[in-house]
Parts: sequence; C-alpha cells; structure tokens
Amino acid sequence: MVTEYKLVIAVRKDLDLGKGKIAAQVAHAAVHCALQAEKNDKQNFRKWTDQGQRKIVIRVDGLQDLYRLKEEAERKGLINSLITDAGKTQVEPETVTCLGIGPADAEILDLITGEFSLL
Amino acid sequence: MVTEYKLVIAVRKDLDLGKGKIAAQVAHAAVHCALQAEKNDKQNFRKWTDQGQRKIVIRVDGLQDLYRLKEEAERKGLINSLITDAGKTQVEPETVTCLGIGPADAEILDLITGEFSLL
Repeated sequence: MVTEYKLVIAVRKDLDLGKGKIAAQVAHAAVHCALQAEKNDKQNFRKWTDQGQRKIVIRVDGLQDLYRLKEEAERKGLINSLITDAGKTQVEPETVTCLGIGPADAEILDLITGEFSLL
Repeated sequence: MVTEYKLVIAVRKDLDLGKGKIAAQVAHAAVHCALQAEKNDKQNFRKWTDQGQRKIVIRVDGLQDLYRLKEEAERKGLINSLITDAGKTQVEPETVTCLGIGPADAEILDLITGEFSLL
C-alpha cells in the first residue's frame, strides 16, 4: 500500500474568525511548514509534493488543544508551526490562531489529530 | 517609504465553498506561490518573508475573474498559481477554485486586485 502524506492545519474555533481570516491563517501555517520541510525534511516534502500537497484543515476547541497538539508533534519529531496573528483585525494582538503539522505520513498524523473534526 | 510586499489569493465566491475548503484551497495557492518565488523570484521572496509573509484573501464573482486576473498577473511578470480542486468533496472534479498572485510589491498587486473586496 502506498503511504499517504499530508499536512494538517488545526484552527481554533473559539475565536470565531471569518472565513477570509481563517484562510489567511491556515495559509501562513501551510507555507511555514512547507518551507521548513523543504529545508529540513526533504524526503517527506518530496513525497508530499509528488502526491499533490494534500492539506487537511481541522478544528479544535481552543488554545490548549493547539499547545497539546504541538507538544505531541514535537515528541514525534514532526515539523510544526504555531501561527500568531498580529491582531490588527478580528482578534487581539498576538493571538495564537492555528497550528500546522507536517507534511508527514498520514497514519502518524492521524495518531495525533485523528480525533478532531474537519473544519 | 518602505515598499510593502504581499501575496494575494483570490477565491471564487460563486462556488459557495465551506470555510475549511476555502482555507485548504487558499493554502494550496499560497504554498505554490511561495515555493515558486523562493526558486524563481528570490528577491521578492526574501523581502516578503522579512516582512512576515503578508497574505490577503479577496473574493471574486467567478471563474472569468480568475482568468482575467491571471492574464494581468502574467502580463506584469508576476508569479501566480491557479488552483484546481480534485473535487472529491463539495465541487465537481477539476474545478478551478482560486488564484494566488505574488509575493510582489503591494502597489503593483493593487493595480490588478485593488477593485476586489476582502473575503
């Protein structure tokens, strides 16, 4: 069976962000993770790119979930990127909005993020 | 005055996509543009990165707007990436969902995208 690769981005639903704002925050996380992987995790990056750069956006209840997910991602040695918004619109300055994890083997990611629903 | 750099992502509002779907499509465009710029437009890429990788998400009425924006971006020599969704959920296969333009000088981008509203 072919191993699937994906990048998961977890978004806080408690902030109740507008869809344009969410999209920009998720894009920040995706770009950060992709650039990190390209530099430091070339093998996963290439496989993910060959498979079309699959991205999955999930929702979490709040900040604590993002911190917990980040901790678990680091424990597994996965690339991750926590995004803090400058907060000029919609949220207070320095609000943590989302977390990107990967790109990585989808099965390993599912161990961490599988419990959460799609946004 | 410091030149501002940004990446603009235009999203079709006629598809009426859910917010998670929009976020993933916008992230596709942003990652494609960022990786292209990193390779082929190093100067703009570096300036954009130094300024925090600003991303702006706008909405357009439909497909024709994306094609027109793409044409104008290419006429100005700007990096751009048109995103086509595989269409397993929410849209028909091979649906063009959004377009990323840049990163580039914000003033040049505004000449093309300035007429559109934020998503």
